[in-house]
Amino acid sequence: MGNVFGQLFRISTWGESHGGGVGVVIDGCPPRVALSEADIQPDLDRRRPGQSRIVTQRNEADAVQIVSGVFEGKTLGTPIAMLVQNQDQRSEAYNEMAEKFRPSHADYTYQAKFGTRAWPGGGRTSARETIGRVAAGAVAKKILREQFGVNILAFVKQVQKVHAEIDVNNITFEQVESNIVRCPDSKAAEKMIALIEEVRKAGDSVGGVIECVAKGVPAGWGEPVFDRLEADLAKAMLSLPATKGFEIGSGFAGVEMTGLEHNDPFRMEAGKVRTTSNRSGGIQGGISNGENIFFRVAFKPTATVLREQDTVDIHGQNTTLKAKGRHDACVLPRAVVIVEAMAALVLIDHALRQRGQCGNQ
Amino acid sequence: MGNVFGQLFRISTWGESHGGGVGVVIDGCPPRVALSEADIQPDLDRRRPGQSRIVTQRNEADAVQIVSGVFEGKTLGTPIAMLVQNQDQRSEAYNEMAEKFRPSHADYTYQAKFGTRAWPGGGRTSARETIGRVAAGAVAKKILREQFGVNILAFVKQVQKVHAEIDVNNITFEQVESNIVRCPDSKAAEKMIALIEEVRKAGDSVGGVIECVAKGVPAGWGEPVFDRLEADLAKAMLSLPATKGFEIGSGFAGVEMTGLEHNDPFRMEAGKVRTTSNRSGGIQGGISNGENIFFRVAFKPTATVLREQDTVDIHGQNTTLKAKGRHDACVLPRAVVIVEAMAALVLIDHALRQRGQCGNQ
Amino acid sequence: MGNVFGQLFRISTWGESHGGGVGVVIDGCPPRVALSEADIQPDLDRRRPGQSRIVTQRNEADAVQIVSGVFEGKTLGTPIAMLVQNQDQRSEAYNEMAEKFRPSHADYTYQAKFGTRAWPGGGRTSARETIGRVAAGAVAKKILREQFGVNILAFVKQVQKVHAEIDVNNITFEQVESNIVRCPDSKAAEKMIALIEEVRKAGDSVGGVIECVAKGVPAGWGEPVFDRLEADLAKAMLSLPATKGFEIGSGFAGVEMTGLEHNDPFRMEAGKVRTTSNRSGGIQGGISNGENIFFRVAFKPTATVLREQDTVDIHGQNTTLKAKGRHDACVLPRAVVIVEAMAALVLIDHALRQRGQCGNQ
Amino acid sequence: MGNVFGQLFRISTWGESHGGGVGVVIDGCPPRVALSEADIQPDLDRRRPGQSRIVTQRNEADAVQIVSGVFEGKTLGTPIAMLVQNQDQRSEAYNEMAEKFRPSHADYTYQAKFGTRAWPGGGRTSARETIGRVAAGAVAKKILREQFGVNILAFVKQVQKVHAEIDVNNITFEQVESNIVRCPDSKAAEKMIALIEEVRKAGDSVGGVIECVAKGVPAGWGEPVFDRLEADLAKAMLSLPATKGFEIGSGFAGVEMTGLEHNDPFRMEAGKVRTTSNRSGGIQGGISNGENIFFRVAFKPTATVLREQDTVDIHGQNTTLKAKGRHDACVLPRAVVIVEAMAALVLIDHALRQRGQCGNQ
Repeated sequence: MGNVFGQLFRISTWGESHGGGVGVVIDGCPPRVALSEADIQPDLDRRRPGQSRIVTQRNEADAVQIVSGVFEGKTLGTPIAMLVQNQDQRSEAYNEMAEKFRPSHADYTYQAKFGTRAWPGGGRTSARETIGRVAAGAVAKKILREQFGVNILAFVKQVQKVHAEIDVNNITFEQVESNIVRCPDSKAAEKMIALIEEVRKAGDSVGGVIECVAKGVPAGWGEPVFDRLEADLAKAMLSLPATKGFEIGSGFAGVEMTGLEHNDPFRMEAGKVRTTSNRSGGIQGGISNGENIFFRVAFKPTATVLREQDTVDIHGQNTTLKAKGRHDACVLPRAVVIVEAMAALVLIDHALRQRGQCGNQ
Repeated sequence: MGNVFGQLFRISTWGESHGGGVGVVIDGCPPRVALSEADIQPDLDRRRPGQSRIVTQRNEADAVQIVSGVFEGKTLGTPIAMLVQNQDQRSEAYNEMAEKFRPSHADYTYQAKFGTRAWPGGGRTSARETIGRVAAGAVAKKILREQFGVNILAFVKQVQKVHAEIDVNNITFEQVESNIVRCPDSKAAEKMIALIEEVRKAGDSVGGVIECVAKGVPAGWGEPVFDRLEADLAKAMLSLPATKGFEIGSGFAGVEMTGLEHNDPFRMEAGKVRTTSNRSGGIQGGISNGENIFFRVAFKPTATVLREQDTVDIHGQNTTLKAKGRHDACVLPRAVVIVEAMAALVLIDHALRQRGQCGNQ
Repeated sequence: MGNVFGQLFRISTWGESHGGGVGVVIDGCPPRVALSEADIQPDLDRRRPGQSRIVTQRNEADAVQIVSGVFEGKTLGTPIAMLVQNQDQRSEAYNEMAEKFRPSHADYTYQAKFGTRAWPGGGRTSARETIGRVAAGAVAKKILREQFGVNILAFVKQVQKVHAEIDVNNITFEQVESNIVRCPDSKAAEKMIALIEEVRKAGDSVGGVIECVAKGVPAGWGEPVFDRLEADLAKAMLSLPATKGFEIGSGFAGVEMTGLEHNDPFRMEAGKVRTTSNRSGGIQGGISNGENIFFRVAFKPTATVLREQDTVDIHGQNTTLKAKGRHDACVLPRAVVIVEAMAALVLIDHALRQRGQCGNQ
Repeated sequence: MGNVFGQLFRISTWGESHGGGVGVVIDGCPPRVALSEADIQPDLDRRRPGQSRIVTQRNEADAVQIVSGVFEGKTLGTPIAMLVQNQDQRSEAYNEMAEKFRPSHADYTYQAKFGTRAWPGGGRTSARETIGRVAAGAVAKKILREQFGVNILAFVKQVQKVHAEIDVNNITFEQVESNIVRCPDSKAAEKMIALIEEVRKAGDSVGGVIECVAKGVPAGWGEPVFDRLEADLAKAMLSLPATKGFEIGSGFAGVEMTGLEHNDPFRMEAGKVRTTSNRSGGIQGGISNGENIFFRVAFKPTATVLREQDTVDIHGQNTTLKAKGRHDACVLPRAVVIVEAMAALVLIDHALRQRGQCGNQ
């Protein structure tokens, strides 16, 4: 269970690292949306390992195939199945994993939960699992952009101790894509890249923070009390591998302000209710207020490091493990697109729910 | 929509500040659990305003009534309806709210979403909404404790800039309840109390951080890839009023470590697989690993302040608003019990889901 | 579990025969619908025992109270809680039920499932459980009528071997309500009433068939492949106590026709696509086609009879049981309103789902 | 929407007649179940057209591929994706369908709902959609059989006016499979076959009734009040193409009995609570009582007939349509396996839900 996400725009993802492939089924996509693989592939390419010298060098083509739900170039309203076949499977590289639990990976917990696990490549716990999310997210982003005027953009805000200075209200996709670490602050980006290369050579890894902004969301999306918009965003983000935290608007730093300092005053602007500051992050009481929605996600350093570590094996014996071969010293540049995808999946679902319950107001 | 939470232990909450009452229906509670109002009322009393000099002085009795689902002192397995009637409704105190949107409250967003809102007392956006959660959470905590050996404890970790030093592995309920701010670090607690009183007199407010620990959760709870245990906890916490952030284990601070520093080594201990550190916060790959689960939640300063603020009214005119009467300068001492309740609702649901899919392993 | 129904217009019902009351929470009701108890009570009165000489003489006032979700006479879009308190509880009348399983009731199966049961009055298995459905259904019927132009009408088609001749396309509410058995064929109604009185005096009971028609449903409601409109109607009807069958359009009799005889030819009529016959019952491929939707529901004879029957007790001993006091010799006249309610709950949910996914086409 | 079925054992089906293929994802399958394509293929072969002279002669291999969720021959507990590629697509055979709505098919309603439709082969409305159900059902049947001792068997009870005499308590799989019409009454089977051949030659079609029995279901499965076991069975059956009715136990005929005649007396037998008759059909109050569960499903005659019929086209003009080529004069022999599949999907879901809420009692 737990592989279905969304209420009206509902996705089911499937697939393991070394099985036949990975994929997703979207149930509830609006009909008559122009859609082809060309709308999906760019985001899969952004997600893919091997794009640059700082990410893992596995070279997986990750070519997506739309198997159903599209006819004569447009969505039918019926389920859209998308499939990416697995390639480059060298399971022999992972033999030790059959017997030993990798520290801070999910090997042990899957074994404890299910009494079994697909150890080659980490099976379902592999980051390949996110391919289905990215493919579905690309569809969601397209509909949000074309039908609702909503644009979503994520970028790397921090790598370990290197912080970027970025105004979320004034960044562009081109700025994000202008460097391989996907940080629109070019000076910080240089430092991040140098850091990641250094860490990679040391066989170690680093994490960081991704920030995401959604522009153009109208006031009124979000379903209190439980399916608040920020609650569903938080769930979506914490459902991603390696995430340890989520904050929206002022976040954890906001707790140092007083109420008077923190409140966002309302003012009329061009006939619309606006706020003159945005510590709320575009959501108040669980419902969008028409301002930019922005939030940050903490990613721990990747668990795979090429250094010897203490662990136990499946026979209950203490042992050590040293991963070999390639590793991803920092997943953040790739994770940017996954954060966008999950944000889009949350927003499209709430757009449709709002239209369902309240109509087009 | 959005007022139903959980898959197997499913709750529906209802009620506004100034309507007939607030309540909850639990669908899916295991049968034959000894249950009476005496199991619920203590948590409602902990949640209630007016418990101490630092919280709002509204005096609401909040007496819970179990209306269905219990027979001869035990749960039936059928829906448990619980009801708390509203009292102390002085709607005249809120007249200005009928016309003006309170800054950083949900007045405007509810109006934008629904085209209407119950302005007296904030209606559904009032913190009274959490009564249903606390009542259901008390049932969940009892079952977790008695049938699964799981104990949940939350406490105030930070009020504005006042930080407490607390070892989550060694605190007790008595320590938490030993002072009115519910912070087990007594020195920090004194400072927090002084701060809150000062802020209250100034008509201002403060927020802070609540930490929560769940002890005794066995390895194997959590449903990747979307219903990861930390994802559902994040959603649960961000569904609470005034929350702006969630972090688990090492959280946002953990991103400053390298992978080698951050990974939790496995070691056998008394025949069980254990980790020698717990930066994972008791969850790996979305599934509990048997260690203590702990996380933190950021609460912004309360939006209601007794000071004049810029805002707009329902006719689209700029204006100002100054709240009158009593206000809650810091909700954290009360919110502790709500955090526990939501954590319990997530955990019991995953306990039953695990038993459903995988049986009692 | 299993006490929540619907996706967007979602209801949770609760309550036992002899507990504090019965009720329902509606989550997802559209906002700004004029609503008061006066919209609900008439249907509860139609459902109530004691309306006429042919139904059970229990005199329960069943006064509904709207406790939340309505403000200044209109729905808020937030949960609507409705409550009916229990009265007339003479649990002493049922003492034998504490020990013996009533044949063809749910006493034994509840005991087997939950290891416990509320035996007074049948607890959750009592027909009082349907009060919440009827209350929610009254809200759904009102919205369907006012916002979607859909009218739902059910009536008694058959009592045991007495069949009525009725044209579903040309009946009115007044015709249905013109006699106490709620059969618009007045000649058949007389026979039915005589039969029910005779059976009641004999301490026995009879069942029959209720037919229901929904007029004005536009083409396009229904969600294949699983949530076909007829599938959700079938589930709704078979979720009612004492139902044994469901058929739509031509139903079981239709299997005796050939395809050529059975198919409904399309013809244009006043610029609309219409069918010249309606063996489909207004639904094709799981989606409404704009014609009248009509279906029939089989109700077995009531299980409670005032005659001695073989049974077993909770100690596993063979014994006999003879119910005493009042009994309902035929529930069909009352069940008519419950069938309408469930049909309305299905239709409103599909109306909102269609609007959510596909917009207002 | 509407392509996801089940709560704990949850399936998502996808695929159109002439797209890349059809398939299903199972989320929530218990782990460590031995599973391979060999467990699935036999049921797909039973469902396949072209098995015998009386069904349509399309020759689709329908070879299933398990793409994920199985490792070293056993289920992982993670999603099981299964895929059947489409073959034998001669879209030119269907050109007229692009412009004309086939009577009593779903062409018009899909167009009305979605504003588009995949007309080749009927797209999503094609019976190929049921392949995903059958594949998932084969997995469910295996687990029910091996872990819960439950066996499900369906057969043809009636073809048009030809009725079979069959004792549901004493039939075997071999009897069902002993003839091409899958009717264990060999005399009736002969008549049915002759009838179908005659109708096929005339370019017409016939429907009928399928009966299904589930043996070995323990007392306690089913989730009142809405997810009664018979309610979910009814939904499952009415979600199948061409179904018009469902009845359980005594069904529509049972309404002619009195309560005294209809009630199933309880008696102890070998230490178990049993009923001496089974008019309840194995379910009382929505919960299984340990007796055989049996129900019947009405299938209308297939809509495709090779005869000229009145219809309209997509431009709103009256016209006629005459299908050409091959047609399936009676789907019942193939539908038997689909009925079994859906019954299995309902039962496994309830088995897991019962284990989740109430544990292994």
